[in-house]
Amino acid sequence: MKDMLGREELITVEEALQLLFRYAPFKRPAEVSIPIKNSYGMVLSKDILAPVDLPAFSRSTMDGFAVRSSDTFGATEGLPAYLTLVAEILMGEKPEVILQKGKCAKIATGGMLPEGADAVVMLEHTQQLDKKMIEIVKPVSPGENVIQAGEDARKDERVLKSGHRLRPQDVGALAGLGITDIWTYEKPKVSIISTGDEIIAPDESLQPGKVRDINSYTLAGLISGAGGIAVKKGIFSDQYGIIRDVVEHSLQDSEMVLITGGSSVGTKDLTAKVINDLGSPGVLFHGVSLKPGKPMIGGVVGTAPVFGLPGHPAAVHVCFEIFIRPAIAIQSGAAESQFDKKKRTIQARIARNISSSPGREEHIGVSLEKRNGEIWAVPLLGKSGLITTLTRADGTAVIPMRKFGVQEGDIVEVTIF
Amino acid sequence: MKDMLGREELITVEEALQLLFRYAPFKRPAEVSIPIKNSYGMVLSKDILAPVDLPAFSRSTMDGFAVRSSDTFGATEGLPAYLTLVAEILMGEKPEVILQKGKCAKIATGGMLPEGADAVVMLEHTQQLDKKMIEIVKPVSPGENVIQAGEDARKDERVLKSGHRLRPQDVGALAGLGITDIWTYEKPKVSIISTGDEIIAPDESLQPGKVRDINSYTLAGLISGAGGIAVKKGIFSDQYGIIRDVVEHSLQDSEMVLITGGSSVGTKDLTAKVINDLGSPGVLFHGVSLKPGKPMIGGVVGTAPVFGLPGHPAAVHVCFEIFIRPAIAIQSGAAESQFDKKKRTIQARIARNISSSPGREEHIGVSLEKRNGEIWAVPLLGKSGLITTLTRADGTAVIPMRKFGVQEGDIVEVTIF
Repeated sequence: MKDMLGREELITVEEALQLLFRYAPFKRPAEVSIPIKNSYGMVLSKDILAPVDLPAFSRSTMDGFAVRSSDTFGATEGLPAYLTLVAEILMGEKPEVILQKGKCAKIATGGMLPEGADAVVMLEHTQQLDKKMIEIVKPVSPGENVIQAGEDARKDERVLKSGHRLRPQDVGALAGLGITDIWTYEKPKVSIISTGDEIIAPDESLQPGKVRDINSYTLAGLISGAGGIAVKKGIFSDQYGIIRDVVEHSLQDSEMVLITGGSSVGTKDLTAKVINDLGSPGVLFHGVSLKPGKPMIGGVVGTAPVFGLPGHPAAVHVCFEIFIRPAIAIQSGAAESQFDKKKRTIQARIARNISSSPGREEHIGVSLEKRNGEIWAVPLLGKSGLITTLTRADGTAVIPMRKFGVQEGDIVEVTIF
Repeated sequence: MKDMLGREELITVEEALQLLFRYAPFKRPAEVSIPIKNSYGMVLSKDILAPVDLPAFSRSTMDGFAVRSSDTFGATEGLPAYLTLVAEILMGEKPEVILQKGKCAKIATGGMLPEGADAVVMLEHTQQLDKKMIEIVKPVSPGENVIQAGEDARKDERVLKSGHRLRPQDVGALAGLGITDIWTYEKPKVSIISTGDEIIAPDESLQPGKVRDINSYTLAGLISGAGGIAVKKGIFSDQYGIIRDVVEHSLQDSEMVLITGGSSVGTKDLTAKVINDLGSPGVLFHGVSLKPGKPMIGGVVGTAPVFGLPGHPAAVHVCFEIFIRPAIAIQSGAAESQFDKKKRTIQARIARNISSSPGREEHIGVSLEKRNGEIWAVPLLGKSGLITTLTRADGTAVIPMRKFGVQEGDIVEVTIF
């Protein structure tokens, strides 16, 4: 099979990714305004500017006494400062008092500083001598134990950038700023088209020769975990006109199309022909030096990525992680951190020798176990078509392209499911 | 403040966790039967047994020719075996043919083996000489390139265990087995009660002395990310009767209760009194040697965990990761893998010296950056009450209890947000 450069051999994973991402950023979903309570995990489509100073007033960060700091200068255990208690500041109330020289006011964490005060002495550094007299044994500098008005965010300052994926604390910050609705990108919709005359739905009764649809269920979960919305189109017969029609419709109502199921050579050629016929640039690669996942097809129609996935469940998983997850991330509009992938991988020692062909990247299902405080990856043996190998696995270990394999005890990178 | 053992000093994080998890497994949510398409991330409440053999019939794992393996023994490039092509097996069809000695049938990946055949020769090891004659240049052993009926899962074999949290490939396996509905635990409901006379909702207009509710928005996202359902109860005044009523109601309609907002000493004592008065064992710890998070209160009422969280947003985050996330995991009914926490942590080098008091576990907000291929954690400086420190952070670095601090370049463990 020839790739687009006319060579006979399979292209590498890296080359395939380069061919594909040359067409990034791909088709984007619409922008939509949503309430912050529904915004967890969504991606901002506009910068967020602080509409007000945060906090709106100077607040104490300690339980103690609001003071003029100059009244405490030089105070020690041996030579304390003595201040007159003139008020207790109630939570949620604006203090009535204006603090004069030599006076102090009781204040709790989060309380509003009275006019005149510029610092708070911690309760632990004071002693109340009687109803009116407070002994201070440690000086405070101006601003000590106080968050100034606007110190957290100043009005019109950018607090969150367009392209940021909202985490719980970011939504908390929006709430704190009084922002209740925000502009985000909708999640990219990814169509799943199952093909194959042998494939039936899980609730159909099983006739000899038929198998139930596994991949569209696995893909739906992977898509939603990657921040997309899976749109299941159904199961279709391996016929050019039928597949072409459903791919064409899917390109109209979703941002990406996955065609899965057909494992035979004929079906794959049919998938490639549909992608090429629907628009340029069409098929970018057809066959990758990857195990499992060699028959992977990647293409772009207009600005929408279209993938033809191998039929083996294990290959579907590997190809999703390599090609589809990063494509969904780009379509989400998210400026993904370089540490996001790091979050899904750990280092482990491989528990047995694995041989591999150099020039091919290989992914092996592994279960993880701890031995003497170290993490070991135990390769799960089993034919590549088995689905229970995947349900028993904790992740997949990668044997890089330039290696002949790995020796027992070698460190490998494991992508955790 | 005295802990339950009557000591004056604060207890360690480890001691607090031991006191709490002595009462595990806590209150559990109900079991419910759901369709598999809604089951991603849910926890099985019953074992799953295969209702049928999977696959239901022997299938080819290659494109090629179904053969009697004995017909190929000894075949080489120089001395090929010659077999007569008698049929092409169509995908999804039961083969009509019964394969006799010296015959073969064309088969695609996933195709059903005809009666009589016991192996498949890969297309690459054959040559079609004419319409009827196939040359075989490599022998196959019995079962080669075939998945046997029941090889993936045998009828009545356990394929997934009770307590397993369903991943995409597990749902795929259920679909493949024809299982469309399963028994799971409902997600645990976690009530969030915001207290504090100074706290107002984000959509209320801001008066001097008031601040908007941040923590209940942060907590709602953290709870849902940990596999729970957040139930926001609203904002309540710091009065014993009011707080007691809402906690009592929350204990009836949820599996865990979080009380957040009150940072002052008085409010914390009120929270502790409510927990103690509502049922035994009551408060288990009140104050932990942890920064931020020292005022944390942990208790159990009957079998439901009840927490009093510090008011500082950074402390809420740290206390959630240490105490609440593992409690939700237990209530989910999930047999959590020991590698789940690993997934959220990475090793990094700290970018500056940080001093710390031994005997106290300290968590510092950090941003991550790559320098010469290594990951460095840059501590974010800022007063502990600031929320924008958290929005700028990629995670938190831990300085363990037994250390005086860390030196620039030391390896630290970072929990990624």
